[in-house]
Amino acid sequence: MSSISYVNGLYVDHNEASIHIEDRGYQFADGVYEVFAVLDSRIVDYDGHINRLFRSLNEIKINSPIDKLAYLFHIKNLIKKNRIKNGLIYLQVSRGVAERDFKFPKNIKPSLIIIAKHIQIDEYNNNFVKGIRVKTTKDIRWKRVDIKSINLLAPVLAKQEAVEQKCQEAWLVDDKGFITEGSSSTAWILKKNTLYTTPLSSSILNGVTRQTLIRGLKKFNLKLIERKFNLNDIKQADEAYITSATQFVMPVIRVDKIWIGNGKIGKNAELFRQAYKGAIKLR
Amino acid sequence: MSSISYVNGLYVDHNEASIHIEDRGYQFADGVYEVFAVLDSRIVDYDGHINRLFRSLNEIKINSPIDKLAYLFHIKNLIKKNRIKNGLIYLQVSRGVAERDFKFPKNIKPSLIIIAKHIQIDEYNNNFVKGIRVKTTKDIRWKRVDIKSINLLAPVLAKQEAVEQKCQEAWLVDDKGFITEGSSSTAWILKKNTLYTTPLSSSILNGVTRQTLIRGLKKFNLKLIERKFNLNDIKQADEAYITSATQFVMPVIRVDKIWIGNGKIGKNAELFRQAYKGAIKLR
Repeated sequence: MSSISYVNGLYVDHNEASIHIEDRGYQFADGVYEVFAVLDSRIVDYDGHINRLFRSLNEIKINSPIDKLAYLFHIKNLIKKNRIKNGLIYLQVSRGVAERDFKFPKNIKPSLIIIAKHIQIDEYNNNFVKGIRVKTTKDIRWKRVDIKSINLLAPVLAKQEAVEQKCQEAWLVDDKGFITEGSSSTAWILKKNTLYTTPLSSSILNGVTRQTLIRGLKKFNLKLIERKFNLNDIKQADEAYITSATQFVMPVIRVDKIWIGNGKIGKNAELFRQAYKGAIKLR
Repeated sequence: MSSISYVNGLYVDHNEASIHIEDRGYQFADGVYEVFAVLDSRIVDYDGHINRLFRSLNEIKINSPIDKLAYLFHIKNLIKKNRIKNGLIYLQVSRGVAERDFKFPKNIKPSLIIIAKHIQIDEYNNNFVKGIRVKTTKDIRWKRVDIKSINLLAPVLAKQEAVEQKCQEAWLVDDKGFITEGSSSTAWILKKNTLYTTPLSSSILNGVTRQTLIRGLKKFNLKLIERKFNLNDIKQADEAYITSATQFVMPVIRVDKIWIGNGKIGKNAELFRQAYKGAIKLR
């Protein structure tokens, strides 16, 4: 069965969903995006994602083509039309279609696409109990990754490099040897009952799952420090994790050749998962 | 009159030319491109551009969908079909269409689009005699700009910043204060009869026009040094230029608040233009 996607005001057969070849998203990566998880047909942390979308749009001076309520309306429609129980929503806004020129065109109408997909929650659960492997690689991305833009070739190459080494994620290392974040996730380590993750700056994305987990952890007696960490810290770590909208909380059992916690998922994995689950807002 | 573009093997009405919303060029900037100038219906420096395209493809592991002769065939066709006398060819290859996932999909067929456009050579000539203004701004691009990828949001923002300051180009400044290159051009200054441009590295694009001008200048008694330069060097410069496939050689008369050569185009402007023209190969 073919699925239904949203393209610039229309609900269309996904196989036929297209945009013009001079869409600036296609020629300049001039656009931003969000990914929303869907659980039990409800959107996870809608407000966090939609607020970040508006921030990203504002940072690159694109006017949103529709208002916040209209996004919710179309996302809800796609969840219904595609009968998504567990899945995700991919949403992208580009500056729109114009004859190619680096500078912003005048009177341009932004393009909006929304795609809905099913995901198998079993697959997540299977990975969760095994944990994943991570490969480190140089962070060669542009310097405004706080903007969730489609300027993603660097993380694509990083992820591919990880996959070729039988890893599921890449952790990106800055010029000073610190981990910034994963290619499409936030990085965490736990050392002596203290959880560490990189502090917010233009070098990392302000992860919505990161925010939710931090909020969820406040109920538990666990110290969280936002501080950069490097490979030496990872060697001394008792546990490691990634978080993202579609990976939720995922334990890491190995980074490069370093086994974390003897290759078993961390003692606090279930606690973190529950802390996250308890803090999400469904809409 | 509508123009004809090439999309994945077909010649189509440009207004109807489209690609799927899950083309990785649209969601990941996972693609590369070239721009060829057309003069008197002939392609400028075809070999230089097509060789660089194949290098870019190779660097990000995309197999070219067609061979080098087929590119020439389709470009020539578009020049004829669109009756281009003076103009440009825009050509882009992306990794292709696949369900969104950062890692490279298996068995994916790359997408190829080619667009032909008319340009007014008078406009170039008018700008040439007046010269252009340049604004410097921080180079926040990714670290592999030697690959001519569509990961272009940083140069888009730089160009826009320049245009808002009534400048025609942005020169990008690295962490150490050196100019790397323009947002879509190579940067040059001339000081005491010596021409300076940034040496090749992963921090700049190996400009085809840069190569052609260097080749052309060998006939003239002018010293060329490939060395980084900063704002202090620009203050002491007698002349300044940009080069690109569509701007050819273009004199710069001002950088930020620094007037170059009293705001008139450099004495050697015509020499450089002739050196470039004499060295191009038409096909």
